[in-house]
Amino acid sequence: MDELKARILSEGKVLPGNIIKVGSFLNHRIDTALMGRMADEFARHFDISKITMILTIEASGIALASVCSYKWGIPMLFAKKAKSDNIENGIICCEIYSYTYKKNVTVMVESELLKPTDNVLIMDDFLANGEAIRGLTDLVREAGASLEGIGIAVEKGFQGGGDKFRKMGIDIYSLAVIDSAENGTIKFRD
Amino acid sequence: MDELKARILSEGKVLPGNIIKVGSFLNHRIDTALMGRMADEFARHFDISKITMILTIEASGIALASVCSYKWGIPMLFAKKAKSDNIENGIICCEIYSYTYKKNVTVMVESELLKPTDNVLIMDDFLANGEAIRGLTDLVREAGASLEGIGIAVEKGFQGGGDKFRKMGIDIYSLAVIDSAENGTIKFRD
Repeated sequence: MDELKARILSEGKVLPGNIIKVGSFLNHRIDTALMGRMADEFARHFDISKITMILTIEASGIALASVCSYKWGIPMLFAKKAKSDNIENGIICCEIYSYTYKKNVTVMVESELLKPTDNVLIMDDFLANGEAIRGLTDLVREAGASLEGIGIAVEKGFQGGGDKFRKMGIDIYSLAVIDSAENGTIKFRD
Repeated sequence: MDELKARILSEGKVLPGNIIKVGSFLNHRIDTALMGRMADEFARHFDISKITMILTIEASGIALASVCSYKWGIPMLFAKKAKSDNIENGIICCEIYSYTYKKNVTVMVESELLKPTDNVLIMDDFLANGEAIRGLTDLVREAGASLEGIGIAVEKGFQGGGDKFRKMGIDIYSLAVIDSAENGTIKFRD
């Protein structure tokens, strides 16, 4: 998506460790008008009429998933990290390794909110090594629901997470795939 | 807002400790169509034309703030909890006590994303004791920005957080104020 790539080039910063910072419009301050146009782009790729649930993970994925959910008229569900007081019994959960926090994190959804009849589109703002998305696919499988596809705003192609899902035959669509960020220069996959 | 109150009565559950669970439509699975109508209700109370930034806090506040942001054409910013790798120097932060996690948590925004010229509407899905919202008002003050008001979906009136801000003369508008939840029966403030 050309508009997203242009924003990454004009506002993105590459930090040590190949961290790509796009907090001015994608995952801290949020340009929801841009997200509306990203929703339109996803809707050109995926058959939205088939989707009954958008699944994302806290925190920053909630913004993109919410705007898509609102525009498409489809409910969304976000997986929570770690256990909080107001989750009763009846959860589906799995472990993922968080590279941000450098430890295993439990992600969960309440089982009554994700049903075997659901056709799920997983969405997130960022995909790097793919641990978070792998966790979400596990939750979908555990619920007995169908995975229709994975929609990502920015994929760090050089970390391999996206290609892993492509090899598994999953329909994954990333609006911008960054193939290298050497010396602070961002290069996109064609 | 009658529609929200009706949903709380039909789908909400009161758990021990007066925890009110509305995860089926407000803060786990999200009914973004309802949130669109909540945005309309907030826009009847607040002068949206004055607002330049919606400020919320991760995680579940992001959904409501995103839908309002998209509908109103105003950017949103969410405060993050704890320090993660991809936040550089230049942050505004404060401490809040999390009753969910029973410990102090640092909340922060990048200072370049919240400016002294900003007119801020703080939004969140839930208000109980008001610690999270108090933290957000501190961030607004620290940034030198103007606080225009606070918009809340569900206020637990019996925990006093909302009335504390009202006494300070802050324009706080909650779409549903729950004044008691004794024996599992939810009663709203008139």
